[in-house]
Amino acid sequence: MTTIAIVGTGLMGTSLALAIKSSNLKVDIVGTDYDSVARSGAQKSGAFKKVESRLSNAIRGADVVVFATPIQAMREMMESAANDFEEGCVVTDVGSSKKVVLQWAEEVLPKHVSFVGGHPMAGKELSGPKNADGTMFKGKAYCIVPSVNAERAAVSSVTTIAEAIGAKPFFIGVDEHDSFVAAVSHLPFMMSVALMGTASKSANWDDIAQLASSGFSDLSRLAAGDPVMHRDICVTNPEPIVAWMDSYIRELYELRNMLAKEGGPDPDALHEVFEEAMNARARWKAGILTKIDRVTSDIPSFAESMGEVFMGRRGMEAQKKFFGRLKDDPANKAKKK
Amino acid sequence: MTTIAIVGTGLMGTSLALAIKSSNLKVDIVGTDYDSVARSGAQKSGAFKKVESRLSNAIRGADVVVFATPIQAMREMMESAANDFEEGCVVTDVGSSKKVVLQWAEEVLPKHVSFVGGHPMAGKELSGPKNADGTMFKGKAYCIVPSVNAERAAVSSVTTIAEAIGAKPFFIGVDEHDSFVAAVSHLPFMMSVALMGTASKSANWDDIAQLASSGFSDLSRLAAGDPVMHRDICVTNPEPIVAWMDSYIRELYELRNMLAKEGGPDPDALHEVFEEAMNARARWKAGILTKIDRVTSDIPSFAESMGEVFMGRRGMEAQKKFFGRLKDDPANKAKKK
Repeated sequence: MTTIAIVGTGLMGTSLALAIKSSNLKVDIVGTDYDSVARSGAQKSGAFKKVESRLSNAIRGADVVVFATPIQAMREMMESAANDFEEGCVVTDVGSSKKVVLQWAEEVLPKHVSFVGGHPMAGKELSGPKNADGTMFKGKAYCIVPSVNAERAAVSSVTTIAEAIGAKPFFIGVDEHDSFVAAVSHLPFMMSVALMGTASKSANWDDIAQLASSGFSDLSRLAAGDPVMHRDICVTNPEPIVAWMDSYIRELYELRNMLAKEGGPDPDALHEVFEEAMNARARWKAGILTKIDRVTSDIPSFAESMGEVFMGRRGMEAQKKFFGRLKDDPANKAKKK
Repeated sequence: MTTIAIVGTGLMGTSLALAIKSSNLKVDIVGTDYDSVARSGAQKSGAFKKVESRLSNAIRGADVVVFATPIQAMREMMESAANDFEEGCVVTDVGSSKKVVLQWAEEVLPKHVSFVGGHPMAGKELSGPKNADGTMFKGKAYCIVPSVNAERAAVSSVTTIAEAIGAKPFFIGVDEHDSFVAAVSHLPFMMSVALMGTASKSANWDDIAQLASSGFSDLSRLAAGDPVMHRDICVTNPEPIVAWMDSYIRELYELRNMLAKEGGPDPDALHEVFEEAMNARARWKAGILTKIDRVTSDIPSFAESMGEVFMGRRGMEAQKKFFGRLKDDPANKAKKK
């Protein structure tokens, strides 16, 4: 029987445990958390065989160890468990910044373990084990970022877990990961925080707030996320976030200037920009992710070239087939509503 | 029997018709739209007693006329129907910019009608009568912005309709309306458009898109909205939108600078900002709209002072009581998750 230890039994760790438990994997899941509330929440979830208060008790005997704590806590956790990892143990994490985590793994983990960075693209603005949801990963990308020394078998283990919980394994280089995730996840969080700040600092906020409805609610939702998790993301991945924020501010400023145009905004120009954004989103929602049809293209994507290193051409064909389903019939699905 | 004519049977017009039909108001609802697809969709909805292809046929005999077209079409519609309005007819609209609409009403409508601007704070990113939803207005604010010449009885009619469909009438001055709505509705739309633009124009968009999940989806949702409606909003309300965009860009730029700080971001400072945003949103969601408890405060809000002009003190006490329910127990509800 394989044993998986999950370090950190908050929203993410407990959701992962629930997802693994209801998968076809025959594994025992052990949890550990420094926080007694998180431990008792994890116990109540029924996903864990045991929930240990001591980190070393959870790590010992585990074939796979998953770090699911806020990022900044990982280095210390890895360090204090350094002597407890079994020979050949596969170590992974679910953090949203990969460069620092890979670096810490390289510096801190013993040579007899294999580290493979992981990052399921799933989450909620709610935190804690009581909000855990094992179905959260279904259909979502699961980034896999192996360390330079990772064994192929270790990559395969993490890939198996990702597939078992219904996610789509996505092989990606560390710099691309940290930049792309900054675009789709960290930038949207900063946007939400800035919106909440802008609105709530206004002298008229109490009147304004009464008019705020579902649009405002959606755009500000991410600002309700765990401040510790987001602080750690920002501290460990600042450059890519800044780069995307700059690009976003430029885009916003162009729109602003269209509205502030001498003599009034040009209706046709505005219409075109709004229609473009609507169409880009419709294409994304329909799974039409590229203008060049990738099936007929010979240029591999980042994900493809990374994947080939670890899975070989055959594994990648399987991955392509999986993603391919999302991509058929671009013309029909891109239709405007 | 009172007859309400709804000019424009798209998402908003048909939703309004459905909501009125299932309310306790005993009225006949007549619809009209220049577009035959919208007319047949409206007919299918079952909300309308008749759907007219000629504007004049819908206007004649109507006690209340509601303009629910894109804003830019309203002036022309008002003009071409000018001779068809019944004596004492109450005219209103559901547009998202109020200043221009009130101005057009003043310029174009005959003196024997009473214009009261209206704006329900409800919507969807989907358009057309087939996506109409009569429950969309429940619990949402319904801005009421009477023209200078509006009769008290006309304000009362529009208020009655707003209440009948489950919305909360919210009396507000025209400048405040156009500014506050720019904050909670037009700014979020521009944010969404800019996010879609930033991400989809990236050379790596096809890889990035595969990582985009629920956070990105929420933040970009409004960009899927009707480009014509939003073009018209921008053209008719540019200054307040620009002012809020400037304020938002400043806020975003401050956050950006916290991340770009020489020597790395200050974790505590970031934590504080994220926690503040989280708390501001939690307070808003819990209905705690003001730091000063308005029950013990003697300073009337914009909405209150406007309301007093039209409803008198007693009506406002009722409105306060209604809003009051949302506001009890601030301390408990503000609790962090």
